[in-house]
Amino acid sequence: MSDEGRNDVTVTDHQLSELAQQLRVDSVRAAAAAGSGHPTSSMSAAELMAVLLARHFRYDFERPDHPGNDRFVLSKGHASPLLYAAYKAVGAIDDDELLTFRKLGSRLEGHPTPRRLPWVETATGSLGQGLPVGVGMALAGKRLDRTGYRVWVLCGDSELAEGSIWEAAEHASFEHLDNLTAIVDVNRLGQRGPTRHGHDLDAYARRFAAFGWHTVEIDGHDVDAVDRAYGEAASTLGQPTVILARTLKGKGVAATEDREGLHGKPVKDADEAIEELGGIRDLRVEVRKPPAARVMHAARAGHLQLPPFQTGDEVATRDAYGQALAALGSGRGDIVALDGEVSDSTRAEYFAKEHPERFFECYIAEQQMVANAVGLAARGWVPYASTFAAFLTRAHDFVRMAAVSGAGINLVGSHAGVAIGQDGPSQMGLEDLAMFRSVHGSTVLYPCDAGQTAKLVAAMADHEGIRYLRTSRGKTPVIYGPDEEFPIGGSKVLRSSGRDRLTLVAAGVTVPEVLAAADALDREGIRVRVIDLYSVKPIDRATLREAAEQTGCLITVEDHREEGGLGDAVLDAFADGRPVPRLVRLAVRTMPGSATPEEQLHAAGIDAESIAAAARLLVEQAVVP
Amino acid sequence: MSDEGRNDVTVTDHQLSELAQQLRVDSVRAAAAAGSGHPTSSMSAAELMAVLLARHFRYDFERPDHPGNDRFVLSKGHASPLLYAAYKAVGAIDDDELLTFRKLGSRLEGHPTPRRLPWVETATGSLGQGLPVGVGMALAGKRLDRTGYRVWVLCGDSELAEGSIWEAAEHASFEHLDNLTAIVDVNRLGQRGPTRHGHDLDAYARRFAAFGWHTVEIDGHDVDAVDRAYGEAASTLGQPTVILARTLKGKGVAATEDREGLHGKPVKDADEAIEELGGIRDLRVEVRKPPAARVMHAARAGHLQLPPFQTGDEVATRDAYGQALAALGSGRGDIVALDGEVSDSTRAEYFAKEHPERFFECYIAEQQMVANAVGLAARGWVPYASTFAAFLTRAHDFVRMAAVSGAGINLVGSHAGVAIGQDGPSQMGLEDLAMFRSVHGSTVLYPCDAGQTAKLVAAMADHEGIRYLRTSRGKTPVIYGPDEEFPIGGSKVLRSSGRDRLTLVAAGVTVPEVLAAADALDREGIRVRVIDLYSVKPIDRATLREAAEQTGCLITVEDHREEGGLGDAVLDAFADGRPVPRLVRLAVRTMPGSATPEEQLHAAGIDAESIAAAARLLVEQAVVP
Repeated sequence: MSDEGRNDVTVTDHQLSELAQQLRVDSVRAAAAAGSGHPTSSMSAAELMAVLLARHFRYDFERPDHPGNDRFVLSKGHASPLLYAAYKAVGAIDDDELLTFRKLGSRLEGHPTPRRLPWVETATGSLGQGLPVGVGMALAGKRLDRTGYRVWVLCGDSELAEGSIWEAAEHASFEHLDNLTAIVDVNRLGQRGPTRHGHDLDAYARRFAAFGWHTVEIDGHDVDAVDRAYGEAASTLGQPTVILARTLKGKGVAATEDREGLHGKPVKDADEAIEELGGIRDLRVEVRKPPAARVMHAARAGHLQLPPFQTGDEVATRDAYGQALAALGSGRGDIVALDGEVSDSTRAEYFAKEHPERFFECYIAEQQMVANAVGLAARGWVPYASTFAAFLTRAHDFVRMAAVSGAGINLVGSHAGVAIGQDGPSQMGLEDLAMFRSVHGSTVLYPCDAGQTAKLVAAMADHEGIRYLRTSRGKTPVIYGPDEEFPIGGSKVLRSSGRDRLTLVAAGVTVPEVLAAADALDREGIRVRVIDLYSVKPIDRATLREAAEQTGCLITVEDHREEGGLGDAVLDAFADGRPVPRLVRLAVRTMPGSATPEEQLHAAGIDAESIAAAARLLVEQAVVP
Repeated sequence: MSDEGRNDVTVTDHQLSELAQQLRVDSVRAAAAAGSGHPTSSMSAAELMAVLLARHFRYDFERPDHPGNDRFVLSKGHASPLLYAAYKAVGAIDDDELLTFRKLGSRLEGHPTPRRLPWVETATGSLGQGLPVGVGMALAGKRLDRTGYRVWVLCGDSELAEGSIWEAAEHASFEHLDNLTAIVDVNRLGQRGPTRHGHDLDAYARRFAAFGWHTVEIDGHDVDAVDRAYGEAASTLGQPTVILARTLKGKGVAATEDREGLHGKPVKDADEAIEELGGIRDLRVEVRKPPAARVMHAARAGHLQLPPFQTGDEVATRDAYGQALAALGSGRGDIVALDGEVSDSTRAEYFAKEHPERFFECYIAEQQMVANAVGLAARGWVPYASTFAAFLTRAHDFVRMAAVSGAGINLVGSHAGVAIGQDGPSQMGLEDLAMFRSVHGSTVLYPCDAGQTAKLVAAMADHEGIRYLRTSRGKTPVIYGPDEEFPIGGSKVLRSSGRDRLTLVAAGVTVPEVLAAADALDREGIRVRVIDLYSVKPIDRATLREAAEQTGCLITVEDHREEGGLGDAVLDAFADGRPVPRLVRLAVRTMPGSATPEEQLHAAGIDAESIAAAARLLVEQAVVP
């Protein structure tokens, strides 16, 4: 089927159908070898994949980082056998590897992930996420990279019930992403039975058309129709295209075709099914390579000059974030920023004003915002995405999957904690530290002053994995001089003596509170140590261990729920079998209402007065020496 | 404007406009008194509210629990001044209380919550959630309560960017919720500037129509048009109606009308604005009371008979969940179940088969599933909503807001942890315990055997707040006899002696592993205590404290990330200033791939062999006596 490294336009429809049958056979074989997997969901999309590979996809499998490569995202990630069968058909993996599917140590996991396979763009398997991330990649291609690549996303029909699909649809048409094609494998059957709309392609077409997409409805098993649809998608300008393909789940085998109850199950009699599909083939398809292209984001714009902040000034860390990000954007051409329609609050607007070409307004669609960040990061950009800390919970599953992808993205949550004041609990990020700490390989930062914020904003850019920065709404005093450094994983000891009777550990808005408490206690003759734990994860075990050994008791103080945040992080530092200090945690334990920031901190028991009282009690009760 | 307790159909358009002006004036006054708040977002919707109250809404403000009451949800929760102004206009609050807006101790929070105000149906303030919860209420009305009430939801235009709105739109039309009316206050301006579609009502109408809604486009300041639109909504059968109202933000005051940059800010010169609006009024509007109606969910169907399980059998806890839920449904008429298109996996299908009239298929739309649960709970039903534990992260913000509402809902996450095996990390719930523990007032349960699961399923029904149950995919041995009780907040000591050298703490799938490890250690002469910590929150501090005092060292073992889960919960139990035991935590620290369940547990270091090795090491190092 191939000649010299370009899509062979002379390949016959018969050959395409044969290739599709091979993809089916190999899907059945892989799942049979594994004893699990989703062959039937693979079989429905075989022609969709075969025609894409042979006639439309442009990709250099030897150079997955080629800037001109098209992108393919398997949004219906459970159809991984189809993807791996395709990798075999293009020669990227061999037949032996295909049969390692779902086995310990294999690159061919149940759902594809880029951490293991260089040709996978983003981890999928949580439905409704592939198209949103594909939108992020198409956004990179359209607005930044401009190397002419196309993004092809293969979706299932069931996953169109996810709201995230419609956030993506809205964003893609608003940004005129004509380099994006969504291919929907409408096989009518979900996991436990029929989908809402079955084979009613018009139902889906009406929705996508209303959202501004060009729509094409086809028989997904007619290779000629598929070919024409892909051509129509590629030649449609100014809007993304969705191809709605009527297909049959388990197509090609009488025992599985269009039948319920077979989702996620290997085909029962695999040998018989393979025979029915015409037996094992070893067709090879050459995918056309992309034209030469240059990486745009390698360009660095200039020297990094972070904004200076004066000790004694009062500056909100969200302001410092905006200023630092704008400066970072001037210093580095690979920095991009995204926001969820609150850039005037998060201060991402400072970046937007200075670097409008690298700013992405995502409106109130936090899932799509994070997906855009993942897509941009997959293309080599360094994204900072911001909204209120509370609303990042909306994108929890996207953050989780970004970690599965190994994506390097920066997420910034403003308006953390009860300290926001009057707006009340719906706007207060009180669970964000718990959420981000539990993400695999994450970094969690919570600065207390402007200069610290600025340095952390710069430092997080080149860190691995999910980086989270928590900022605050109100002003806090600048307590660090301009030369202070804040390594990720470090902490700052702000008060220390040989007579410390306990240690106060804080971060962010509670740092000024513990300092005030320490001063009050000091006036009463009670010396305490104070640690600013700006790096919540990784955590500075050595400094905490030293404080524990020297003072015997730690009080953690956080503007966050008592579970999963600063207190838990500090406790974790001692879960190594060695002696553990006595520990008391001050955190937000009630459901706040509306009140001033000061009233809120007091009501939650995390203001200077409450902290001093807790410390005093421990000293009086002789819990501490 | 009122006579004897029914909507006064003779009220003139002029009177309606006067009422609208009063709502504006009172919105301006409340925000001025607070020094914060969203008067401009209130002013755009004044006529929409005035006409609803005077002519269409049926509600007994003295009996907010009246089964026949219409429901009103302020999806754009930041427009709370409008809602509170309306409460004043109907006589539910007085003018003095209105002016306590956003102050410490006031019921009138920045965003409305039912925990404080009896007429608020659900907490709003995280945009895109009011309509989904309204769908849940309309679902209750249509399929269960059948008392004829209508659900009216006032949305902002900005929030239509949230995917959750489209999950709701899809669900509402699929369920033919003609008792639901969405009113969209299209004021063109979001927080930081114009929305995507500005005043293009057609853009929204196309989308809703494509999703199967009846659409009406009007001038939202024309009381007559508003009145006719509401009438049209009420008389439209078989589908929900959306009223798209063209409005002006800050309407009625030249300094604020249709101007950018005034979101979330009190009107600058309030006195001048009030004068421009015609001054302070004290109009009262009588809302028509609903007809007599009976609460349906009070009916109990019969005797509760939980399924019996035999010690020594192997049963997956997800199977036990399905069986117990079906039995609970037979025993109680107020139990309802929801699932995210995976009921064959979660086993919610057992309930669905026995009680189809009380089962709600939510398809792959986890946000809407949780919103439906919140809406059903608001109407007195006791919902159990299930999907894979991993995918409940999709609904994190809805769970957070449900806690703000004080909603009582049961959420069940199956396929937890690496123990699911081959499917890989996208399907593994590894962050769910952290997420649910950080939710205010939550209950977190993680049973290890079938009988324990069944009893906990029954016990959680009548608990307060968010109740989370974690189930497992694979079979585990039934270790408890049928008479064993499992109080929430308790634990079970499975091995104990006077010579225990350390304590193994586990829950769920790691319980059989720690038991096997304990047996192996016992054969080597090392006695260890074993605790089954099935209630992760609240936690059994007394038993843990006793084990700590008697054995000195705890090893926690969990099929979850090391942050925020079982290990943190155990540590938390000791954060009270008293001595803390030495502690070692075994948890999932890497990103798993595909492998068998046994291989996964071993790779994560949480199988019997790894546990015994860790215990042995501690004993050999003489860390423990």
